[in-house]
Amino acid sequence: MDKILRIDMGAEGGPKVTEEPLGDYTGLGGRALTSAMVAREVPPLCHPLGADNKLVLAPGMLSGTTAAMSGRLSVGAKSPLTGGIKEANAGGQAAQVLARLGYAAMVLEGKPQKDDLYRVHINPGGVKVILDNSLKLLPNYELVERMKYQYGRKITCISIGPAGEMKMSAATIAITDMELRPTRHAGRGGMGAVMGAKRIKAIVLDDAGAKMRSPQDPEKFNAANKKFVEGLRNHPVTGQGLPTYGTNVLTNILCEAGGYPAYNFKEGRFEGAHKISGETQAETENLRGGPGSATHGCHRGCVIRCSGTYFDKDGNFLSKQPEYETVWAHGGHCGISDLDAIAMLDFLDDNYGLDSIEMGVTIGVAMEAGLLKFGDAEGAINLMKEVGQGTHLGRILGAGAAVTGKVFGVERVPVVKGQALPAYDPRAVQGIGVTYATSPMGADHTAGYAVTANILRVGGFIDPLKPEGQIQLSRDLQIATAAIDSTGMCLFIAFALLDQPETFQALLDLLNGFYGTNLTGDDVVALGKRVLSTERDFNVRAGFSAQQDRLPEFFKNEPVGPHNVTFDVKDEDLDRVFDW
Amino acid sequence: MDKILRIDMGAEGGPKVTEEPLGDYTGLGGRALTSAMVAREVPPLCHPLGADNKLVLAPGMLSGTTAAMSGRLSVGAKSPLTGGIKEANAGGQAAQVLARLGYAAMVLEGKPQKDDLYRVHINPGGVKVILDNSLKLLPNYELVERMKYQYGRKITCISIGPAGEMKMSAATIAITDMELRPTRHAGRGGMGAVMGAKRIKAIVLDDAGAKMRSPQDPEKFNAANKKFVEGLRNHPVTGQGLPTYGTNVLTNILCEAGGYPAYNFKEGRFEGAHKISGETQAETENLRGGPGSATHGCHRGCVIRCSGTYFDKDGNFLSKQPEYETVWAHGGHCGISDLDAIAMLDFLDDNYGLDSIEMGVTIGVAMEAGLLKFGDAEGAINLMKEVGQGTHLGRILGAGAAVTGKVFGVERVPVVKGQALPAYDPRAVQGIGVTYATSPMGADHTAGYAVTANILRVGGFIDPLKPEGQIQLSRDLQIATAAIDSTGMCLFIAFALLDQPETFQALLDLLNGFYGTNLTGDDVVALGKRVLSTERDFNVRAGFSAQQDRLPEFFKNEPVGPHNVTFDVKDEDLDRVFDW
Repeated sequence: MDKILRIDMGAEGGPKVTEEPLGDYTGLGGRALTSAMVAREVPPLCHPLGADNKLVLAPGMLSGTTAAMSGRLSVGAKSPLTGGIKEANAGGQAAQVLARLGYAAMVLEGKPQKDDLYRVHINPGGVKVILDNSLKLLPNYELVERMKYQYGRKITCISIGPAGEMKMSAATIAITDMELRPTRHAGRGGMGAVMGAKRIKAIVLDDAGAKMRSPQDPEKFNAANKKFVEGLRNHPVTGQGLPTYGTNVLTNILCEAGGYPAYNFKEGRFEGAHKISGETQAETENLRGGPGSATHGCHRGCVIRCSGTYFDKDGNFLSKQPEYETVWAHGGHCGISDLDAIAMLDFLDDNYGLDSIEMGVTIGVAMEAGLLKFGDAEGAINLMKEVGQGTHLGRILGAGAAVTGKVFGVERVPVVKGQALPAYDPRAVQGIGVTYATSPMGADHTAGYAVTANILRVGGFIDPLKPEGQIQLSRDLQIATAAIDSTGMCLFIAFALLDQPETFQALLDLLNGFYGTNLTGDDVVALGKRVLSTERDFNVRAGFSAQQDRLPEFFKNEPVGPHNVTFDVKDEDLDRVFDW
Repeated sequence: MDKILRIDMGAEGGPKVTEEPLGDYTGLGGRALTSAMVAREVPPLCHPLGADNKLVLAPGMLSGTTAAMSGRLSVGAKSPLTGGIKEANAGGQAAQVLARLGYAAMVLEGKPQKDDLYRVHINPGGVKVILDNSLKLLPNYELVERMKYQYGRKITCISIGPAGEMKMSAATIAITDMELRPTRHAGRGGMGAVMGAKRIKAIVLDDAGAKMRSPQDPEKFNAANKKFVEGLRNHPVTGQGLPTYGTNVLTNILCEAGGYPAYNFKEGRFEGAHKISGETQAETENLRGGPGSATHGCHRGCVIRCSGTYFDKDGNFLSKQPEYETVWAHGGHCGISDLDAIAMLDFLDDNYGLDSIEMGVTIGVAMEAGLLKFGDAEGAINLMKEVGQGTHLGRILGAGAAVTGKVFGVERVPVVKGQALPAYDPRAVQGIGVTYATSPMGADHTAGYAVTANILRVGGFIDPLKPEGQIQLSRDLQIATAAIDSTGMCLFIAFALLDQPETFQALLDLLNGFYGTNLTGDDVVALGKRVLSTERDFNVRAGFSAQQDRLPEFFKNEPVGPHNVTFDVKDEDLDRVFDW
C-alpha cells in the first residue's frame, strides 16, 4: 500500500492511468490522506463538477491487514452539496481489497469532453479503463449483477447509480458488501456526483493472488488484535446492543431521551417509534428470515456485526437491514411508521445511489412544503422513484434538502453548510448540535458523536439539555474521529475506546505493531488536529466563515418538546471549538 | 417625508400599522436608508423568508420634489437569492407618491401565521391593510386592472405577481408607470419573494390632496434643477442615445466591442444582434406604434425618456419597450434574435413578476443543461409559462440560475453570490467584472457601471481588455452609485455627472437647496462609502468572506472571442476595492 493510482479522465486521447509513490503523503491513510490531497491539489473555488475537482478514494492505515474492523474506505473531494471539503467513509469490502492491491489512494482527475461512460477494472495484473455506454443509468443492484456476470463472484464493486450519473448533490458511491450487494455507501456530500462528473460508472476490484498486508512486528500486532477484539466484545454497545439490534437500537433510546426529531424537527419524540424500533426490526427480520438474520458484518474482519438483512412478508430479500439514521430519516422525520415501506425506501436509496439521510430529510421538507402529507409512505416511495427517474421534481429532491427548501420557499430546512441534519435533535442533544454546527463536513453525526456522553453515558456523562461542557465534548470527539477515520477503523470502535483504556492501547499497539512505530495517544490527538485544521483551512479558502458554523435559526427560537428546550450554546463558544 | 410607516404582518390579532419619526435615520433616503435599516434591524443569519426579515421601501432624498429624475424607489431586505443584503431600485411613480404622502420608508415586518393574502391602501387619510384572498395568483397586469376598477385611475401600485407569492428567488416587486402599467420592477435579488412571504400582494398609493415636497431654498433649488436638466439634455448619452433608442442602444455598441455575452457567455459577439438592436427596435416600434413610441419617461419628471412601448404586428400593446439587459438576457444570451418573442418574454416577466436578467440567464443555463436548444424562442416562452404556473420545472427556474445549475448539474453558471451576471462579458469589459465580483449586491451592472470608461468613453477611458485601472474605476463608481441610489435619482444621470462638473454641482445644489445644507462633493463620497461599508458589514455577518468576491472560475480559464481574453484582475486586487 505504497502507491497512488491516478486516472486522468480528461487526458488527450482518452483516460490516462499513472502510478506514483506516496511521496509527501507517506504515513497518511483514510481521511488524513483524502483531506490532505484535496486540500493540496483541488483549487478551493473550483466547480465541484468541473475538471479541477479530484475524487480521492483511500483505504485506512490498517486496511488490508488482519486487524479487525479495518474495512472503511475514505472518499474525499470538494463537495457539490456543501461547497466545502468532504470525506465520506463506508464499509464493505473495497478498502481491504484496494489496500491489498497496493494502493494507498486512487485519484480520479480531470473530466472527459464527451458524455461517454467508463468502467474501471483493477487486479494485480493492472488497471484498465474501458468505455462502456451500456451501463448508462443502470441502478446499482443491476450494475453489480452485470459486473458479476462479466468478472465472476470474487470481485468488489465501487459504483454510482443513476443519481451519480445525473450529478445529483445527494448522490452516493456504493460499495459492495460480503454478499456482493451494493449496500454500503460513502453517503454524504454528493461524492457520487463527483464520480458521475468524471464519467466513471463502476470500479471493479479483484485481489485474487494479492497478499494480505504484513506487519513489521507480527507478534505485537497479533497480540494487539486479540486484545482489541476482546475489548469490543466486552463493551455493552459493541458486544451486545449493536450485534443484537443493529444501529436501530437507538430509536427507542432517543425517543426516551426526547431527542428524536419527528415531523421535520417539530417534535422530540415519535408516537410511532415502537413500530420501527430496532427491537421490532430485529424481531421482524428473525421472524421472516430465520434467527440470526440481524447479525453479520459488512466486511470481512468485522466483529461487531451490526448489519443484517431485511426480508419482505414472503421472505424475499427487500434490502439490507436499514440503519438507524435511515429508519429515522425515512421514518419518524416524515411521520412514517411502516418498516416495510422504510426498507423499500432504503433499497431505492441504495439502488439509485442516494444518501438516505439527505433523501429522508428532503422528503420531510417536501412534506413541509405541502407536496405530500406527513406519514404518507406510498407518497414518499413515489417521490424516491421520481428521483431515480430524474423527473423535474426528482431533480429538485436529488439536489438535497437545502435546494428543495429554496425551490419551494420553505423556511424550516434543517441543514448546516447545505447538508441535512441527522437523527438527533440538537436542542435535546446539545453536544451533537455543536458537532453539526462546526464540523467542516456540514451537519454530520459521525464527525463527533456526542450522543456518547450526552445520551449513552459512554465516556462519562454531560447533560444533553444544557450547553455546559458540550464544546469540549464535541472538540475531543471531532479530534478522535478524524484520527480514527484515518486508520480505516469503523467508528463504532470508539465506544470501547472511550470507556476502556486497554482497548485504546490495543489500537495503538496495532498501529505500532504494523508500522514499527512508537505512536502514543498524543500522536493520535495530533493527527486528528492536523486533519481538522487541513479541512478547515480548505473551507476558509472555499469561502466559509464562522457564520457557516451555525445551526438554522429555528433551533434557537423554537423550543422542542418534551423538554421544551432550545439550542443554547452561544455563537462565541461555537467559535472556540477549534481553539486548541 | 419625515415618517416611517411600519406594518407588522405577524402581530397578534392581525396586521398592525404604526408610524414613527425618522429618528436615528434622519437625513437618509433611498439606498442609504434601506441598507441602514436592514443592517440594523434584520438578524444577518435569519431566513430571508422568515418573520425576522424586513422589507424596506424608501423613496430617495429628492423624491417627491420637482427635481427632475427623482423617481427611484429603493427596496431593501436580506435577499433570498444571494443571502446577503439587497437594495434593488426601480422607476415608476411610487417613489414620488410615497414621498408626497410623507413616508421616508415603509417597512413590512413579521409574518402571518396563515396563508391569507392582503392588500394595503394608503392615502392622505390613512393606511388600511385589507384581507383579500381574491387576489391570489393574479398576474400583475390583471391585478392592476382590479385595483384600477376598485380605486380609480389616479393610483400607483406596488405589487407582486404569482412568482412573489410562490416565494421564488427571482421574484420582483412591480411598480406602475405613468400609464398605470406594472412595467417598472425592483428586479434583482428576489425582493418579490420577501413581499410574498409577508403575504402582501399589493400596495395601492393615492396621493390625491397631498402636496409636492417644498424646498428650504426654492430659488436655489429651482435654478439648480434648470441647470441639471440642461446638463442632461446636453450630454450625448442622456440627450440623444437613450431618448432615441432606449437602453437597447447598447446592443450594437457591446457587440462591436466584443463584450456582448452570447450563448451563455461562450462568445463575445452575437451574429443575430442586428435583428434585436436598439436601432431595429426603435424602427419597429415607430413603424408599428407611430413615431415617438420609443420615447417617454417611466415617471413624471423624467427628462431622459429612455422608455417606450412595444407593439405587436397588428399594432396592439405587447409590452413596454424591453430594456437592453432584457433583450440581451432573453436574446443573445440564449441565441434568440426574434424581437417579438423577446417582447413577449419581457411581458411575461412583468406579468408574473420576475427579474428579466435572472430569468434570461436561467433559461440560458437550462439550454446549457440540454432542456432546450439555444435559439429556441418558443421553447423559452414555454419555460417562462411553466414558471408562472409554478410547475416543478417552473419552480426550479424561478429559483434562479444558480439553483437551476445545481439541480441540473451544470458547470457553466454565470453568477456571483448566487445572482446572475448582466449583459457585459467581464473578460472583455474587465471593469464591470470587478463590480460583478465585489459589489455587496452580487453580480450587478448598476452597482458600479464601469462600461462608462471601458466602452462608452464617459468619464475618461480605461482599456476594457486589461486589468490595469479597473479596481480604481469600479471603486469610484460603486461609491458614486451608492450615493446616487440614495438621492432617488435615476442612475442614468451619472453619464452627465461624470463628464460635466457643472451638472454634478447642480445635483449638489438641488440637495442643498432642498435641505438647506452645504454638502460638498466630499460629503457625497463619504455617504457612498458609508452605504457600502454598512452593506459589506452586513454581508460579513451573514457569512460572506473575500472568497465570495470572485467570478466563476471559467472566466479566468476560458478565453472569449473575438479578443480571446480571460478575466485577468488578480484576486488580491479585488480584495483592495473597498480599501479606501
